[in-house]
Amino acid sequence: MKRIAVVGCTGAVGLTMLELLGPTELEVLCMASPRSAGKLLQVGGRDYLIEPFSVEACATCDVVFLCVSGEFALKYGEQLAQSSVVIDNSSAFRYHPDVPLLVPPINGKSYKGEYLIANPNCSSAIALMVLGPLHQAFGLESAIISTYQAASGAGQPAMLELRERARGFEDYGLDNGSENFAHNLAFNVIPQVDRFEDNLYTREEMKVVWELRKVLGEPRLAISTTAVRVPTLRSHAESLTLKFKQPIHSLEGVRRLLAEAPGVELVDDPAAGRYPMPMTSTYKHAVEVGRIRFNLIYGQYGLDLFISGDQLLRGAALNAFEIMQLVKR
Amino acid sequence: MKRIAVVGCTGAVGLTMLELLGPTELEVLCMASPRSAGKLLQVGGRDYLIEPFSVEACATCDVVFLCVSGEFALKYGEQLAQSSVVIDNSSAFRYHPDVPLLVPPINGKSYKGEYLIANPNCSSAIALMVLGPLHQAFGLESAIISTYQAASGAGQPAMLELRERARGFEDYGLDNGSENFAHNLAFNVIPQVDRFEDNLYTREEMKVVWELRKVLGEPRLAISTTAVRVPTLRSHAESLTLKFKQPIHSLEGVRRLLAEAPGVELVDDPAAGRYPMPMTSTYKHAVEVGRIRFNLIYGQYGLDLFISGDQLLRGAALNAFEIMQLVKR
Repeated sequence: MKRIAVVGCTGAVGLTMLELLGPTELEVLCMASPRSAGKLLQVGGRDYLIEPFSVEACATCDVVFLCVSGEFALKYGEQLAQSSVVIDNSSAFRYHPDVPLLVPPINGKSYKGEYLIANPNCSSAIALMVLGPLHQAFGLESAIISTYQAASGAGQPAMLELRERARGFEDYGLDNGSENFAHNLAFNVIPQVDRFEDNLYTREEMKVVWELRKVLGEPRLAISTTAVRVPTLRSHAESLTLKFKQPIHSLEGVRRLLAEAPGVELVDDPAAGRYPMPMTSTYKHAVEVGRIRFNLIYGQYGLDLFISGDQLLRGAALNAFEIMQLVKR
Repeated sequence: MKRIAVVGCTGAVGLTMLELLGPTELEVLCMASPRSAGKLLQVGGRDYLIEPFSVEACATCDVVFLCVSGEFALKYGEQLAQSSVVIDNSSAFRYHPDVPLLVPPINGKSYKGEYLIANPNCSSAIALMVLGPLHQAFGLESAIISTYQAASGAGQPAMLELRERARGFEDYGLDNGSENFAHNLAFNVIPQVDRFEDNLYTREEMKVVWELRKVLGEPRLAISTTAVRVPTLRSHAESLTLKFKQPIHSLEGVRRLLAEAPGVELVDDPAAGRYPMPMTSTYKHAVEVGRIRFNLIYGQYGLDLFISGDQLLRGAALNAFEIMQLVKR
């Protein structure tokens, strides 16, 4: 592999990808809208000249990262995959049966050299780091998930808006609207991420259902989710209630299993005030897991736990980066 | 009823109680620590001279509101209840079999004139407004609850700390500690409210379990909870996954039921961006309920919904106020 492209390099995920690439020996083409083209981008210890997007330039690359909208990906994804391996961060192709949806530590071995690969939704990717090993060990029967999602999922301007609104906050009044969220997010929580589906779940909630099933290879797995935006900057948290087919004999065994799982950091010493939090998981590559306890309803067949992971890293760019490492070119 | 006392009048709950009392014909004694005694308190359109707490002064009152710590309540509660009806906002007596735990719209009819009455935990009181009518209609089998709890639950100084930290926030760094929470709360979520029990649940989580069972009169009801502090000011939110004994034939029926329930406001028009949020439920007497949908696992036997209610009003002072209205003195 010699040459890669990052399309959408000025967005939150694109920038994080460039940070991850760091001072690499790879040649990296940075592409964005014509508005940004020609500007210089300093990131990850390197200077990049932003180029306008072009199919021809992408075709000279071994791997093309699409950190752009689903509409853009739908329009160009298959065309780009004629000549390059395309790793698409949008949801455009995730549910297509022929497109692998990869979380490398969990289902990376299922990759068979396809040219179009989907990167999962951030909430899915973060949950899967923990659900993967638990499912393998105890057989997941059902998962009930409530999320605490950061502003970064709505992009770079959303993070700025939240910080400015929080700084200038006086009191709750009439909804003063938002450029980036369904409502003002400062000192608020919003139980809507993405648009609503006919079944009254949001698309974000259904993405988690569909993607957990696809990555775990369990197309009928019982999952229910509530996706909520909270006023944090770039780490999601999730409250998980899990039911298993096999009984769990000791929490210590669960802790050992998760401590050894790739991409997972066990942060589970509640008496010492240690548990997963956005404040501590931000900028971390690993997903924090803690508050591990037997569920009060399911007893030894159930676990409750709390996780937190950086939405831009594990939830997006880092997973895409790890997909690239699977690609043999 | 002629004369009441508010003990702990300078705290967040005490002040909210005085606001609720407003320009009443009742004589109101305001009591606080010797440190505050002698100061003038302007609240609810009235001026109050703060008195030091005294058992003798309380004994001249028909009703005594205890808006103080559990230790204080344990020390004085039973003594005060010799001469006055004591409505205690702490958890000191909530689980005592002889002490009624009242949420008036739900189990107010069970009140038999006891002199010591417990006011529930805020998360419990808010959830019960919605769980009560649903349990009555469909028979609750299990409840899985994740909370999004505001700073106000940790008191007035906690709300100030959150606002100041949010205003001065630069970046996530090392935990810079907190005077009021287990960690800094600005742009963070903390999966710890109250201390940890032996079963690794927090006391806040177990309070919800115990109190839902007691108020609904179902001592073995299956409940599991995760209590999380989020950076909002004074309204809690909760994500509820409920399983029922009887099938639910239409969501429209559920909406009608909840729209007519006392103390509940149906806010459930997701396509129009209307659902419960701290921003809109703050300062409201009613608990907002919305995001009502069939649970993806339990089908017609399950509902997922989202609620939000003012922690200081419905979660504390307003419930205590409604308990006072049950007292015939």
